[in-house]
Amino acid sequence: MNLTGGSLIGLDVVSGEGSAFHGLNPRTGERLYPAYKGVSQADLDAACRIAAEAFDAYREMPPSRRARFLETVGDRLMDLGTTLVERCASETGLPASRIEGERSRTVAQLKMFASVVREGDYLDVRIDRELSDRQPVRRPDLRLRNVPVGPVAVFGASNFPLAFSVAGGDTAAALAAGCPVVCKAHPAHPGTSELVGKAVQNAVRDCAMPAGTFSLLFDAGFDIGSRLVQDPRIKAIGFTGSRKGGMALRNLAMARAVPIPVYAEMSSVNPVLLFPGALHGRADDIAKAFVASMCLGSGQFCTNPGIVLAVDSPKLDRFIAGVREILTSVPAGTMLTPAIHEAYERSLTAMKQHAAVSCLATGKAATGPNEAQAHLFSVSDEAFLAHEELAEEMFGPASVVVRCKDMVAIRRILQRLEGQLTASLHVDEADLEQARSFIPLLEQQVGRILFNGFGTGVEVSHAMVHGGPFPSTSDGRSTSVGSLSIDRFLRPVSYQDVPDALLPEALRQDNPLKLARRIDGLLAL
Amino acid sequence: MNLTGGSLIGLDVVSGEGSAFHGLNPRTGERLYPAYKGVSQADLDAACRIAAEAFDAYREMPPSRRARFLETVGDRLMDLGTTLVERCASETGLPASRIEGERSRTVAQLKMFASVVREGDYLDVRIDRELSDRQPVRRPDLRLRNVPVGPVAVFGASNFPLAFSVAGGDTAAALAAGCPVVCKAHPAHPGTSELVGKAVQNAVRDCAMPAGTFSLLFDAGFDIGSRLVQDPRIKAIGFTGSRKGGMALRNLAMARAVPIPVYAEMSSVNPVLLFPGALHGRADDIAKAFVASMCLGSGQFCTNPGIVLAVDSPKLDRFIAGVREILTSVPAGTMLTPAIHEAYERSLTAMKQHAAVSCLATGKAATGPNEAQAHLFSVSDEAFLAHEELAEEMFGPASVVVRCKDMVAIRRILQRLEGQLTASLHVDEADLEQARSFIPLLEQQVGRILFNGFGTGVEVSHAMVHGGPFPSTSDGRSTSVGSLSIDRFLRPVSYQDVPDALLPEALRQDNPLKLARRIDGLLAL
Repeated sequence: MNLTGGSLIGLDVVSGEGSAFHGLNPRTGERLYPAYKGVSQADLDAACRIAAEAFDAYREMPPSRRARFLETVGDRLMDLGTTLVERCASETGLPASRIEGERSRTVAQLKMFASVVREGDYLDVRIDRELSDRQPVRRPDLRLRNVPVGPVAVFGASNFPLAFSVAGGDTAAALAAGCPVVCKAHPAHPGTSELVGKAVQNAVRDCAMPAGTFSLLFDAGFDIGSRLVQDPRIKAIGFTGSRKGGMALRNLAMARAVPIPVYAEMSSVNPVLLFPGALHGRADDIAKAFVASMCLGSGQFCTNPGIVLAVDSPKLDRFIAGVREILTSVPAGTMLTPAIHEAYERSLTAMKQHAAVSCLATGKAATGPNEAQAHLFSVSDEAFLAHEELAEEMFGPASVVVRCKDMVAIRRILQRLEGQLTASLHVDEADLEQARSFIPLLEQQVGRILFNGFGTGVEVSHAMVHGGPFPSTSDGRSTSVGSLSIDRFLRPVSYQDVPDALLPEALRQDNPLKLARRIDGLLAL
Repeated sequence: MNLTGGSLIGLDVVSGEGSAFHGLNPRTGERLYPAYKGVSQADLDAACRIAAEAFDAYREMPPSRRARFLETVGDRLMDLGTTLVERCASETGLPASRIEGERSRTVAQLKMFASVVREGDYLDVRIDRELSDRQPVRRPDLRLRNVPVGPVAVFGASNFPLAFSVAGGDTAAALAAGCPVVCKAHPAHPGTSELVGKAVQNAVRDCAMPAGTFSLLFDAGFDIGSRLVQDPRIKAIGFTGSRKGGMALRNLAMARAVPIPVYAEMSSVNPVLLFPGALHGRADDIAKAFVASMCLGSGQFCTNPGIVLAVDSPKLDRFIAGVREILTSVPAGTMLTPAIHEAYERSLTAMKQHAAVSCLATGKAATGPNEAQAHLFSVSDEAFLAHEELAEEMFGPASVVVRCKDMVAIRRILQRLEGQLTASLHVDEADLEQARSFIPLLEQQVGRILFNGFGTGVEVSHAMVHGGPFPSTSDGRSTSVGSLSIDRFLRPVSYQDVPDALLPEALRQDNPLKLARRIDGLLAL
């Protein structure tokens, strides 16, 4: 498949008129072709218009057809074969194995949503039966289903060029819900975006979905993205990226004449709690797993373990020694973009110059452009509490160990931390009762509590929450991974005394879609 | 029970220090005693502090105890007997029968939430079982439940002094979810608020709930309410009232360092569509039901039918003649407060002075203070589209008939209307196909679609949606009535590889709470 540098407006390819930009190989600094140009306002307008036009037909497709469409997107993605893997590797510096893994995840995600659509539980069908003789007034026949909110704008993320980008979780969830998608490609991987966008476009064509079901827009800067968020036909936003970017989109969305929900997954330092028993018995094993998690994908994961909390002790020193030993042989990894690399370097410099911070260990030094050297810092609990900036995310393979006086200090630090995606507790049998006392606090601070593991590796399943209190996400009631993420793009509608023939299929008396329904409040399968 | 004029901070009664205000009998203009004074900043702070302190214990109460507490609130409310009915009638001008009906509704609402708590479906328990042999990596054990968001601030509404006020829907839903409530009383019915607040306080005491589970704050103005929304311990807001008030709270909540969700139910004109067949066969019956709905509670319902859309025809004239005939004998009704009455009079004046508007019919003239005379206006479709102000809510017993050229004009007007709580379609057999074509549009514009009825009379049940796209509510994904309204105060948390002994009961392997659970994506009862 030849790359054209064009945006996809429904089934068409259009050349942009804005300033040109290129993909860039972060390993070599080499410019990648073709050039991409930002779409015009007219193209943006067309994408939103056809999305709105497609909405009624798309949302009322039979579930089997919408499910098949999602599966076909996955098939067309696989059809891209090594072309996709190679281009993506060039644009991101990520190894082919990681990209293949991410592709599997992305396809599995589409398939999971296909099964969600087929099953139909996400519709939350409820029926309160008419009580014609009820006094003092008759109870009407009431039926409820969830409907999709309307066209959704999805912003591709730089750090997961497949799983959180053009056909990633936000797109899959929105399409599953019945919402057309207008995607703004991340400029860090335009070729990957075009390839994946074409796969979606081909699936739209193959499955005879309405043309406006999917569009993909390129732009070098923020202009088209900002306008997209403000377009009255867009009804919700999915975003994974920086706090600054997410908050900018949220503020635009809130200022609209008709505000819309913004689901921005933004920043997290994912505290790791090392309990005494675990440190006593398994310091070396934990150190090994910790380094693997911290350095995974050059630390460019939202769930990267950025802060380690433990009581200062010889056991903690043993853990640190273990980390130091392993880190010594960890090569520097190429980061996704020069901008991300520069930001990481700035974070490191700030930490190194901070009077309260010591550098405990480093990985191998960089040998090529945009490479990130792993770093482990340490700080005392008092200094950590005194310096808010130490709790900020360092996006990259770096973490800070907070040497705490006691468990009370650990608790105080957790109370002061902002909302997080995850918290990891490393415990042995002896630590269980102490760990128990942290759970109520963590439930209020994070979206996922995990034991004896690390937050990297986010399962795409039904019980996953990849979200958390602000600012880890802009809307802490949501998850951006897993089947529950479809809820972000739905709202309930109630139908009162609507004649059966006029009800949507999901609500008809004879239940043609064979859905689980809540009848008078009780679930019936 | 003697009224004290004090606010309730947990189990205590405190005298305020702010400026004094009184209840007022809108029928007589008589000042009601005692005086109420705004709480101090210290009292507000104490209410939020004890709510936060109560949270962990309250949210983990066994379901049976929390359910019993909700039922006890209802019992204590009933114990107030005629004292409550009489005080409420004096403060609101509403007839005793209406207040008794609203009391029944309020108690039934508490009982419904008690059963929701006992059943436990709102927890949305999901379990993805460990797959230890999965390649390339093990799947961890993942479990999800919803947790309450934290202390909730509830703003009492003026127009439902019981059902949407101190122990109304927002309070019941928040308490059911496991959230302590800090309620800001509406100054239009302070005595009613104090009585109901004491009933809740007594239930807290009787059921040995944590003291901070409930507080009730008085204030003459907006200061305490504003500070309450900004208090970092408050995690969500429930509000029913004006668009101006709701948006002010929303803007405060969005500007917080940690923004929180605001569920404000604000304004709606609830379009009524009269189809030709229905007008042909039942113009008089519809006219009668329409007048009853329009004048119910002096038109002070969020679901009041404010706009009637129909094709201009002799049949429509027949409907209007029917309305005129009935209205002639409808007495003016006392409105809740002088301020609401003044606003209604201003709306009427604006309509009467509007060049494009005719007055078709009126009810009986006012004979006492604060009485609202019912009005029916009419306007052409073109004028309606040309003058945005004609689509604004007139809070009171008034409605405007839009005489439309054809069904296309009706559709165009619906497309231009802002988001609404309800839309009513009056149809006969012959109208069904035409009505069908409106449903996709209405699904996007309103929260409840109803046939051959009116939106007033909001069933408290499982399939009810009392919410709708902005600006009918600030968050169109929510309902403020019915069992689904509990979702507003919940967020999901995922537990990964958490030892069984440390899991909350809802998630334990042996399912001690006997909850319906989604295992590997499939519901198991």
